[in-house]
Parts: sequence; structure tokens; C-alpha cells
Amino acid sequence: MKSLEEVLKGIHPVSADLNLQSQKKLDRLTKPQGSLGRLECLAQDLVRIFGKMDIGINRRVIFTFAADHGVTRQGVSLYPSTVTAQMVLNFLSGGAAVNVLARRARADVRVIDAGTLTAVLDPRLVVRRIGPGTKDFFLEDAMSRDEAVRSVESGADVFLGEDDSGKIDLAGVGEMGIGNSASAAAILCSLFKKSPADIAGRGTGLDSEGLQRKIKIISESLDRRRPDPSDPMDVLSKVGGFEIGQMAGCFLAGASRRTAMLVDGFISTAAAALAVRLCPSARDYLIFSHRSDEGGHGIILREMNAEPILDLRMRLGEGSGAALAMPIVESAAAIFAEMATFESAGVDGKKS
Amino acid sequence: MKSLEEVLKGIHPVSADLNLQSQKKLDRLTKPQGSLGRLECLAQDLVRIFGKMDIGINRRVIFTFAADHGVTRQGVSLYPSTVTAQMVLNFLSGGAAVNVLARRARADVRVIDAGTLTAVLDPRLVVRRIGPGTKDFFLEDAMSRDEAVRSVESGADVFLGEDDSGKIDLAGVGEMGIGNSASAAAILCSLFKKSPADIAGRGTGLDSEGLQRKIKIISESLDRRRPDPSDPMDVLSKVGGFEIGQMAGCFLAGASRRTAMLVDGFISTAAAALAVRLCPSARDYLIFSHRSDEGGHGIILREMNAEPILDLRMRLGEGSGAALAMPIVESAAAIFAEMATFESAGVDGKKS
Repeated sequence: MKSLEEVLKGIHPVSADLNLQSQKKLDRLTKPQGSLGRLECLAQDLVRIFGKMDIGINRRVIFTFAADHGVTRQGVSLYPSTVTAQMVLNFLSGGAAVNVLARRARADVRVIDAGTLTAVLDPRLVVRRIGPGTKDFFLEDAMSRDEAVRSVESGADVFLGEDDSGKIDLAGVGEMGIGNSASAAAILCSLFKKSPADIAGRGTGLDSEGLQRKIKIISESLDRRRPDPSDPMDVLSKVGGFEIGQMAGCFLAGASRRTAMLVDGFISTAAAALAVRLCPSARDYLIFSHRSDEGGHGIILREMNAEPILDLRMRLGEGSGAALAMPIVESAAAIFAEMATFESAGVDGKKS
Repeated sequence: MKSLEEVLKGIHPVSADLNLQSQKKLDRLTKPQGSLGRLECLAQDLVRIFGKMDIGINRRVIFTFAADHGVTRQGVSLYPSTVTAQMVLNFLSGGAAVNVLARRARADVRVIDAGTLTAVLDPRLVVRRIGPGTKDFFLEDAMSRDEAVRSVESGADVFLGEDDSGKIDLAGVGEMGIGNSASAAAILCSLFKKSPADIAGRGTGLDSEGLQRKIKIISESLDRRRPDPSDPMDVLSKVGGFEIGQMAGCFLAGASRRTAMLVDGFISTAAAALAVRLCPSARDYLIFSHRSDEGGHGIILREMNAEPILDLRMRLGEGSGAALAMPIVESAAAIFAEMATFESAGVDGKKS
């Protein structure tokens, strides 16, 4: 398994070398200049990410990382922790939302056990358990620093192994973990110096009283744990989750392989933010699939200078938003590759 | 060919009978209630439109209506009228944006000549020419009332013929016609009593001076033609276009066959607005694919109580926005049909 240092060394900022060439190509296609809006921007993003004009997308994978959270004992979720492992089985048998959406997007779904409370035994599951769920960060650090590093490294390893078995052009990074919207909110508040009242959301559907309780637990936990915002590994170990660490590693490994990495929703954004703090160049490889309806996701997207593709009031996670955005990214690539030019189609240009 | 009266008689408002049943089904699926946001609303829209719980989408068609506009002589577009027929050939050979996006969406594209300046001879073209482009509505009525009625009826006929050859579940209605964003703006200003300064846009890419000129031409034309906002056929005949009339007919025929009809962008919205004025129940069958970057599209969407699925700064027309939204509508149908339930997957519900 590669060390974190080795993974980070493989990440290079994208180059602007092909910007002019790709813009010229877009402007020769049979459409008024710029009239495909965001699709044209996405095509140029892909040119920069892949580092070449051929931006065909052949292999798509959604990674869904699952783990449990000790802080669930503080009553921050409507559902019991047992649901995490039950949903893992649902992912493996293809019945969850992410499976349905990934089938439409022609993407494979890989399910990773990053540390559910009870281990699921199934040969289709990718097992990278760091432990049986994190500790309750209201009472103690969620994990040790060593566990935090191992979670990032093992998440990177999952991506690299899958990519070795066939180049991944477009990946989505999602999750399942009862209680993890509290952990993600704590991470985001720490990294971006925001108040839990502005960032934490209703998760699986808390009422207003439940949300107030969740905000209080996160606020007190941040006061007690005092994560160092300038040290992403400290933030992850104190208030993070095993699946969130692995997702951060997955983003980093994807960037090192020049894969276009789709950020899913609120929790995926927390992992992406950790990845970018560990290596700012990783930001170049991220495409934000949607604005989630969860808490202050919009605030964080603005902080990350991210324009989400979709805004459909979704708040499920799993990678569902990433899967839904995949056909749009792929459409951008198809426009770039397949449209006729004014010359080839014999269409007149603008009046002079 | 059916008369307009016969088409309108076939349109019935959707029923709310299955609302409770479809909501119950959505709430049994393995996800927190409402967490798929707009996808859940779209699934319920489809249940109402189809009038049944089986909302599988088997056949998708994009209709692209093309015609020319006399008002182009007033310099309201960057491109010459010759481009309309040239783009018709591009649609037929599969090189335009709508073709690329429709292939991704697994939709057929049907191209209709509603009245281009020069007729295109090609066996793949659906020919329903009302005339060689409209008259210049700055100087005289764009068409006679008889031509307006015939354009709506022939557009309906195109849909009905295609639907007879295989039930269409999901259709998109787009267009091509140099100058038609001026016609669409005039129609929308008339129907919704808005000012051209708020509604007209840059079309294929006018600069600020060109836009001011276009606004002036539309304003003066409306003063001269004085279309009656309470009589959609009067509005169509005075400042409309042959393709816009046919698109309105296509929407009406789709509603009469209980097809989910995707409105494309700015010009498609003008046609949809005419259709809804001719028959308010037709509104129930419309799904608005995207907010266009053209002029005051957002203002009109609010007037029509429409929440677009996508907002990607696109302003191309052709049916490109409808094609791009199709996979999302289809994903909504797939979620409804394919997801496991809490019971079937053995997943615990909320804590009591």
C-alpha cells in the first residue's frame, strides 16, 4: 500500500496548455459561441484533467464507503447504527438509489467497508475496516492519528487497485454511515471556521428540536476536541469518520491518476475539503455534482469556489448525486468529440 | 388531419387519484423520506401524467421544428436565414448538438420543415411547410389566421403520426429558426404583458447595441400589430412563426396522448405558453427541462409556475436542453420502479 506521502507526490496541478486549443475547437462546432454554457466549461475541465484533447469517457465507477459513528449515541440521527450494515447489503444486492442511478449512468458501484459497527461478510464487499465504528467524539477523539492516516491511505489504495484493473475516467465518491452528517458538519465547521448553526443539517430527517440538539452536540464537541484547522489529519482524527478519511484518500488517488472525480453531496464535500487541504492541487480534479439540501452545503460550495452541476433538493448521499450528474459530464465530452463543425457541415458563420 | 377542436377535446386534466399511492410507495423505498428531492416529485408527475403506477419510459422522441422568419430582415440576428436550412441538413446527418445529446438519452430525433426559406429535399425530413418563412412582422402580420391554425394542427399531426407508430412516453420539443428568439420574445411579451426590454435576449450572440436594436424592433412591432393577449391564435398569426405554431400543436397532441412533454428553452416555452392558453389542462403534461440563459426566460418560467430541472447557462435551442434533461426524468422513473423497500431489503426504519 502506498504511503500518503507517495500518493501526494503523484498529484500535479492541471496545465492550461490546451485551453486555447480546446476553446478553438468548441468555437468551430455548429452552435453559437458559448451557447452550450456549462457543458462547454465541463468539456474544458475534462481536457485539463486528462491533459489531452481526447476526453472520451470509457469507464465510470462509483465508490460508496461505509462506516459507523460513535457520536450516534448522542442522538444525532433518526436511524439506528444497524442501518449502515443493512444498507451495505442493499448496495451489494443492487436495490439502493445509488445502484439504480449508477445503472442508468453505466457506472460500476464498488462498496467499501471502512468500519461498520458489525462486519458484513460478503465476497463482493471491499473490506478495509479501520475499526468497528469511530469513538463518540462528544466524549473522546473519534480515532487515533494513526487510524486517520491509515483511513486516508486505505481509501487511496481502493482507488488505485480499481484503476489498475482498468483505467477509470470518471469516478463518483459517496458514502453511507448513520451519524456521518454530524461528523461532516464538524469537519467543515473546523476547516472553514463556520458555526454549526450555519452548517449542520437535518441529516436523515431530524425535526427542529432534533436539529438544535445536533447543533449543540457538534458545538460542544468542537469546544472539547479543539481540532487544529491547519492540520487536516488532526481534524479527521478528532471529529471525522473512517469512511470520510477513505473518501479523502480516494479523491487524492483519483487526482494522482488524472481521473475526473465527482464530489457527491454534503459528506463527500467534507472529504473533498480534507483532500484539498492535504494537497491543494487535488482541487483541479474535482467536479461538484450537486448542491445538497443538507444544512449549509451551499455556503461550503462557495468557500470552495465550486459551481455544482445539479440543484435538485437531494440529500441522500451514497453517491446518488454523483451518479445522476455522470450523464451530464459524459454529454459534455460527447459534444466535444462528436459535433460537426461549421466547415464540415457546410453551415454559414456569422454575418460579417 | 385532426382539427384543432378535435385535438383539444382529447386533453383532460390529470387526476390526483394516485397521489397518495405513489407517495406511499416512495416512502417505503430504502431512503429517508423525501431525500431524493426533485426526483421524487418527477416520479409523481409521471404517475399523474401516465395515469398509472407503471411509469416505465420505453420510447423517447425529440421533435425539432424548423422555419424562417421575415423579421430577420430587420437585423435581429447575427446569422443569415440560410443557416436554418443548413442546420436542418446538419440535424438529418446527426452532427448537431441535439443529435449528440439525444443519442446519449437514447432518443430519436425527428426533424420537421415547418417552412424554411428554401425547401430542403431529403427523404428523412418530415415536410409540413406552411410557407417559405413568415412575413416580416415589423411591416405586416407574420401569417394569416388560417396559416396560424394550420401550423398548430399540422404540428399536432406530426406528433400523432409518430405516436401511432409506437407509443411515445417522453418527448422533447425544440426548434431551429434564425430570428425566432425575436418572435418568441414578442409572443411572450404579448401573452404575459411584459416589456421586451425584460424578456428579449441576445439570441445567437448579439452585442449590447444589437440587443437594443432587437428590443426596439419587437416593441415597435407589438405597437403596430397589437396582438390580442386573450386570443393566442391572434398572437401567433401577428408575431409568431410556423415552427412555433407547430410546436404548440405538438405540445397539445402530446397532452392528448398522455405523454410527458419536455419543454426545451426560450422559444419552446413561447410555444408551450400558446398551447396552455389554447388549453389550460395541457399545462399538466409539461415538464420544463432547463432555465435558458436567453433573455427573461426565468421571469416567464415563474409566470408559468415552472421549476426547471437544469440551470446550465445553455441557450442553443434545437431540443438540446430537453435531450439533456431526459436521463434525469428517466432516472426518476427508474428510482420509482427499481429501488428496494425497507421490508424487502431488511433495513430498519426510524427509531420510535
